[in-house]
Amino acid sequence: MEKRILFLNGPNLNLLGERQKDVYGEVTLDDVEQRCRVLADDLGLTVRFEQTNYEGAMIELIHEARTYAHGIIINPGGYSHTSVAILDALNAFIGTVLEVHVSNIHKRQAFRHKSFVSLRADGVMAGFGTDGYELALRRMASVLL
Amino acid sequence: MEKRILFLNGPNLNLLGERQKDVYGEVTLDDVEQRCRVLADDLGLTVRFEQTNYEGAMIELIHEARTYAHGIIINPGGYSHTSVAILDALNAFIGTVLEVHVSNIHKRQAFRHKSFVSLRADGVMAGFGTDGYELALRRMASVLL
Amino acid sequence: MEKRILFLNGPNLNLLGERQKDVYGEVTLDDVEQRCRVLADDLGLTVRFEQTNYEGAMIELIHEARTYAHGIIINPGGYSHTSVAILDALNAFIGTVLEVHVSNIHKRQAFRHKSFVSLRADGVMAGFGTDGYELALRRMASVLL
Amino acid sequence: MEKRILFLNGPNLNLLGERQKDVYGEVTLDDVEQRCRVLADDLGLTVRFEQTNYEGAMIELIHEARTYAHGIIINPGGYSHTSVAILDALNAFIGTVLEVHVSNIHKRQAFRHKSFVSLRADGVMAGFGTDGYELALRRMASVLL
Amino acid sequence: MEKRILFLNGPNLNLLGERQKDVYGEVTLDDVEQRCRVLADDLGLTVRFEQTNYEGAMIELIHEARTYAHGIIINPGGYSHTSVAILDALNAFIGTVLEVHVSNIHKRQAFRHKSFVSLRADGVMAGFGTDGYELALRRMASVLL
Amino acid sequence: MEKRILFLNGPNLNLLGERQKDVYGEVTLDDVEQRCRVLADDLGLTVRFEQTNYEGAMIELIHEARTYAHGIIINPGGYSHTSVAILDALNAFIGTVLEVHVSNIHKRQAFRHKSFVSLRADGVMAGFGTDGYELALRRMASVLL
Amino acid sequence: MEKRILFLNGPNLNLLGERQKDVYGEVTLDDVEQRCRVLADDLGLTVRFEQTNYEGAMIELIHEARTYAHGIIINPGGYSHTSVAILDALNAFIGTVLEVHVSNIHKRQAFRHKSFVSLRADGVMAGFGTDGYELALRRMASVLL
Amino acid sequence: MEKRILFLNGPNLNLLGERQKDVYGEVTLDDVEQRCRVLADDLGLTVRFEQTNYEGAMIELIHEARTYAHGIIINPGGYSHTSVAILDALNAFIGTVLEVHVSNIHKRQAFRHKSFVSLRADGVMAGFGTDGYELALRRMASVLL
Amino acid sequence: MEKRILFLNGPNLNLLGERQKDVYGEVTLDDVEQRCRVLADDLGLTVRFEQTNYEGAMIELIHEARTYAHGIIINPGGYSHTSVAILDALNAFIGTVLEVHVSNIHKRQAFRHKSFVSLRADGVMAGFGTDGYELALRRMASVLL
Amino acid sequence: MEKRILFLNGPNLNLLGERQKDVYGEVTLDDVEQRCRVLADDLGLTVRFEQTNYEGAMIELIHEARTYAHGIIINPGGYSHTSVAILDALNAFIGTVLEVHVSNIHKRQAFRHKSFVSLRADGVMAGFGTDGYELALRRMASVLL
Amino acid sequence: MEKRILFLNGPNLNLLGERQKDVYGEVTLDDVEQRCRVLADDLGLTVRFEQTNYEGAMIELIHEARTYAHGIIINPGGYSHTSVAILDALNAFIGTVLEVHVSNIHKRQAFRHKSFVSLRADGVMAGFGTDGYELALRRMASVLL
Amino acid sequence: MEKRILFLNGPNLNLLGERQKDVYGEVTLDDVEQRCRVLADDLGLTVRFEQTNYEGAMIELIHEARTYAHGIIINPGGYSHTSVAILDALNAFIGTVLEVHVSNIHKRQAFRHKSFVSLRADGVMAGFGTDGYELALRRMASVLL
Repeated sequence: MEKRILFLNGPNLNLLGERQKDVYGEVTLDDVEQRCRVLADDLGLTVRFEQTNYEGAMIELIHEARTYAHGIIINPGGYSHTSVAILDALNAFIGTVLEVHVSNIHKRQAFRHKSFVSLRADGVMAGFGTDGYELALRRMASVLL
Repeated sequence: MEKRILFLNGPNLNLLGERQKDVYGEVTLDDVEQRCRVLADDLGLTVRFEQTNYEGAMIELIHEARTYAHGIIINPGGYSHTSVAILDALNAFIGTVLEVHVSNIHKRQAFRHKSFVSLRADGVMAGFGTDGYELALRRMASVLL
Repeated sequence: MEKRILFLNGPNLNLLGERQKDVYGEVTLDDVEQRCRVLADDLGLTVRFEQTNYEGAMIELIHEARTYAHGIIINPGGYSHTSVAILDALNAFIGTVLEVHVSNIHKRQAFRHKSFVSLRADGVMAGFGTDGYELALRRMASVLL
Repeated sequence: MEKRILFLNGPNLNLLGERQKDVYGEVTLDDVEQRCRVLADDLGLTVRFEQTNYEGAMIELIHEARTYAHGIIINPGGYSHTSVAILDALNAFIGTVLEVHVSNIHKRQAFRHKSFVSLRADGVMAGFGTDGYELALRRMASVLL
Repeated sequence: MEKRILFLNGPNLNLLGERQKDVYGEVTLDDVEQRCRVLADDLGLTVRFEQTNYEGAMIELIHEARTYAHGIIINPGGYSHTSVAILDALNAFIGTVLEVHVSNIHKRQAFRHKSFVSLRADGVMAGFGTDGYELALRRMASVLL
Repeated sequence: MEKRILFLNGPNLNLLGERQKDVYGEVTLDDVEQRCRVLADDLGLTVRFEQTNYEGAMIELIHEARTYAHGIIINPGGYSHTSVAILDALNAFIGTVLEVHVSNIHKRQAFRHKSFVSLRADGVMAGFGTDGYELALRRMASVLL
Repeated sequence: MEKRILFLNGPNLNLLGERQKDVYGEVTLDDVEQRCRVLADDLGLTVRFEQTNYEGAMIELIHEARTYAHGIIINPGGYSHTSVAILDALNAFIGTVLEVHVSNIHKRQAFRHKSFVSLRADGVMAGFGTDGYELALRRMASVLL
Repeated sequence: MEKRILFLNGPNLNLLGERQKDVYGEVTLDDVEQRCRVLADDLGLTVRFEQTNYEGAMIELIHEARTYAHGIIINPGGYSHTSVAILDALNAFIGTVLEVHVSNIHKRQAFRHKSFVSLRADGVMAGFGTDGYELALRRMASVLL
Repeated sequence: MEKRILFLNGPNLNLLGERQKDVYGEVTLDDVEQRCRVLADDLGLTVRFEQTNYEGAMIELIHEARTYAHGIIINPGGYSHTSVAILDALNAFIGTVLEVHVSNIHKRQAFRHKSFVSLRADGVMAGFGTDGYELALRRMASVLL
Repeated sequence: MEKRILFLNGPNLNLLGERQKDVYGEVTLDDVEQRCRVLADDLGLTVRFEQTNYEGAMIELIHEARTYAHGIIINPGGYSHTSVAILDALNAFIGTVLEVHVSNIHKRQAFRHKSFVSLRADGVMAGFGTDGYELALRRMASVLL
Repeated sequence: MEKRILFLNGPNLNLLGERQKDVYGEVTLDDVEQRCRVLADDLGLTVRFEQTNYEGAMIELIHEARTYAHGIIINPGGYSHTSVAILDALNAFIGTVLEVHVSNIHKRQAFRHKSFVSLRADGVMAGFGTDGYELALRRMASVLL
Repeated sequence: MEKRILFLNGPNLNLLGERQKDVYGEVTLDDVEQRCRVLADDLGLTVRFEQTNYEGAMIELIHEARTYAHGIIINPGGYSHTSVAILDALNAFIGTVLEVHVSNIHKRQAFRHKSFVSLRADGVMAGFGTDGYELALRRMASVLL
């Protein structure tokens, strides 16, 4: 059976590769998508990419994923630290959830150390740069296939 | 004079009865609406039902209620614990506000124990299941009629 | 089978309707009992009313309820915030526990925001005035009948 | 009109003058009562003395004082730091409340630094030894006469 | 000279062996008393057993113990965590105080980790089941004889 | 070279002058815009006004400002205290950021004392009423011209 | 032997009776001095009055008191809550120290609840109005004579 | 009627423009005074400038202002974060109080985030550089004229 | 079947009976071993004694115990309060764990009140002096035989 | 040039695959080593594996790595949460540091949420099971080659 | 070039050797000055000694030191723990700052553990008695010469 | 009688002068030893130098010192902040203990501000660079000779 993965990117990630390059690097979200599509083909996974700056839209994309996806790779951006509502949406999703942060949030300000999403995620990764997305995808293959 | 009540449901409540049934039960939001409409007729109240996953939309529905409603029965879902902006919107509403949570949030994780909305609400109810909506409606009748 | 409910009121509630009327209203505990007896008849429930200012007496009334009651509607008054012993007594009770506060404790001083009883209660209600007792009774009927 | 004052002593104060004399001194509660009765006569006040080790009994003595007393001089002993219920009882009393501690509680362990009763008391005195009772009585005369 | 020990049990311990057996086991307080009387005879100690659900009564039993007992073995139940007044009463007792909890309170909720009584007790034991009472009695023998 | 400023107003500010007039005054957001346009002309600045109740929309308006604006005068309303995502968006903006609050948030509840936006803002002003917008505009002129 | 008492008043107390009369009453510091001089004569004590708004001056007045005074009655005003240096000065004084606050600081903002001076004072009084000075003087007589 | 404003600068502000120029800029306090005098003339306000490094002197300058000033523009420097006594002095002043900090204190160490003065100030401004003084003066004109 | 118990003593316990005798008494660890061997024979238990000052060595002794022991009586000394790694090692041990402290750690500094080991231990004892080892052994017999 | 990686495993990881399989899975550390050696060959990296239960030994292995390794993949086990000394050792290492936890430490007890090692690590991964080691190795290849 | 050092002593240090000799010893500040002058001659440093009880005077002495001194050896006494203003003054001083406390402040009350001055000081010493002044002077020689 | 001093250096100090030179300088531990041996000869003290990365080894070196040393100069490195066991070992040492940190730990991260060793040390020094060792030795001479 085909295994489908949603990549869900939250606020400001549309600017990846453009803003604060010292923190987030120079790879853009399009580059990430390209690389992950290639790797997904290799691994035999189907992937979908979404980015939104709206908390409400993230919730609804997660709701929708309940109907088709076996896993979610989520980078909740700034909502990681403040959104109980996204946590609740993920609690309603039955499948694997992997959380990815491009930078190592544990080295930054204290308010970035806690993520509500981590209370639901099966795995959490921070500071692996944009490689993190592909590494998470490999983990998905390992868990789902 | 006709008394009008807005039922305002926040994020993830569209999944009521479908997700985490051990926590939230099996009654859907449509069922709740049906029951409340029947009871409202009995009590002589006019009701309107809204659900949205967007914080901004909740704020605007509250703004709009300022022009027609005498009371709001709100289940702010995950935004209860994180939204100062919804609290501010409610502060601009002159009328009765009753807050309803389906589960007993005081038995769950610590971050669910505090609700910004409770700072404005006249009454707060948690853990009465979906009965809570009807009980709140009865209180509205007692206060407004 | 007959379903029996204990209404248990804690310290200072004998003064309900007499003290701090701006906070607690003008309805007395006798009025509450009258109304609840009428409603209980309607709902087909048997009720017993107790009030005491002693923590020890509350504990023993709960112990006794283990032998006859199917539900407890408790307003623990000031002991809500300080009594682990009442919590322990309720933990030894097998049945439905509903906690009622006349005023919205979440709008008052910080030390009133936490209730030990809420860790055991199935439902918690605050700020519904003396209507709260009847609303809780309705919930009892919904759960037990 | 005659002005009546209740002296209300809480737990362990029956041992005053017998226990931990380095902390509380050697004067007994009977001695205190004697001295205060003499002073009350001088000042033209009527006084009543009560001591109990029960929180519930303290509450009921305060309730009763609502019917006859113009002022309460209270030493709540260990209940000072833990009883919201006594605070609530005092909130229902309309008159002057003065709180007396024999030892300076601010020099002792941290949990003795906060008194719920102080949130209601008009005046608070700690560390004036058993003289504190008479000083409080003088203040009562100054306020009431 | 005869050495006398007071066993003082606090709130809800009359239900020992009946309530929450997964936490507290199936041995009743009567069983405990039986076993301790047998052991006390062996060790040459005289024992007295008391149980009460009232904080005030516990205080007065401790006051009384000042006149006859050389040691107190106390299980303060839920009052452990909330009663400064019992601590004060024990501070007025000159002799050995051993504190016993049937369950390991350190593995339970945070509010059970701190005991005011431990600030006075010479020894504290938690999680040794009902054996704890006999072990404490053996320690009394070791200290007093 | 023309200098362009974005005025960005967050949730509930569409009600300025209508809600809680004791806190926020009677001047409307339209009035503010009028006054600022006049002053901007005087100062030789170009201004744009936006208001939205959506956090996501605020983020996108800031993203867009990266392409045309030299400064942002932001009143983040209730999102000030809860939005890491808006802070992140502002971190991606290179230019002057001034934060304006109509009321003195430091005199209100504790949760209003901290603003995530202040971690990025060059200047922060609270309690200068609606004059604050014009004062911030003057500062912009001083910095940019 | 003559017993000498220093009355030391800290910042803003020169405005007593003029500022915030709802909090501090209408009696001026001169009135207080008059009354205390009369009472001191009655009691057979010699008194000196000082007021200063400077923390450094308070310290030096305490240093000087080491050479002549047997007791200090101090109202440290706002320095109560912030001055370790005054505490240290009092620690170098050998004699009785009584701390007086006109208002009940425990009913005011949290930062007024803690006084460094209380860590040294033998007695602390708050909320007895300007009567507090005379009551403290009586205590001095009781301790020193 | 002539409106008079006191500019009151606290500790270290005599070094403005000389110390830590990266934080505070290169404008001196004399420059600020010059500019404000010019602007005051334009606005029709009378101004007085004071700077002192002594907390006690600040208090007395505020006391004195009670007799002639309609507004105080205060930069309390390091005393902002530690002085309850200055807050108390300002509480005795009836008029408008505006608080100015040259740097954005919210971006600096945590102990600089809280200002006691802000509990009394009508408006607070931080990070507007030395322009802040003039902007505050404009606000004074808006409020007082 | 033979039941085997490991007595595991942590850092500084080799000095028992030699250091801080007012806190720990005069009995040495050798004495303890002697007494416990005698009691073990009586009870029909086999015992092994280990002491080490190395956290790593404690971990490995616990690992080894997994292969032969039915119970561990551990006095983790100073590592009680700081070692998650020892807790983890004990979590990997299937059998009874009893924790013994010679002194009553609840009466000492705050950092001694919390023990990571207590999160795993079945029973915890503090302040029973060196008797504690034998009492724990009796409990082992009661549980295992 | 050959790139060398140290895999450094801390306390209790010798039990991987044997203890608490529900938390850590059934793969042993030997299995992990096998898999990583295969992957390292593919990626063109040289690897060394170490495991120790001693904090001191971990520090010295890190010191030694300064002389030959370009990267360290560390699973500090229970020392993650308590060892400043390992953090200091890593601070003296110049190269890439990746931290791996088999379980999602953010879902476990609060004391596991903070890792001192994360303050130095370039990347942190938790909850990816034993796959985490290989994923970290891939990241090493991406960074170093 | 001549190197000049300011010794700056804060509040209560004029009493050194006279007050609380168990804490501070019997050496006076004059003795300290004598010894340091001798040592300074040996080391080839020029020294100046100041003591004041006024925070404002300390600030001004530091300001003045900006014009002549290469180093400051400061014992801020009780102001260590409360003065942001002195910290700010030291931040404006370019040179070496060494902080000396006669007693070991880390063994005293918690409020003495934190020193604002330590945030600026190059070195901090506590508990070396009055030797600390000479040791700091030696360090000055090592740094400056 | 000969006076013997143990210099005990903890984890990572073998790297002194090699790692993070901006923080710790370029002097090696061997250099320190050389200098201190020269100074010890001058002062007439006998010294021993030890360095270990093992907490257990530090404890045993302290135990051993009980048999020969009159003083310990300890730099506990990273164990300062986490080791209760080293504190306990030092508590068993009767003699002078001086604690030395090369860098000013009070200017670094918050977790470095508290040292368990400081609760036992007679003196504590931080930020005096490697001179600190010699200064501590001078203090030893002053105390012991």
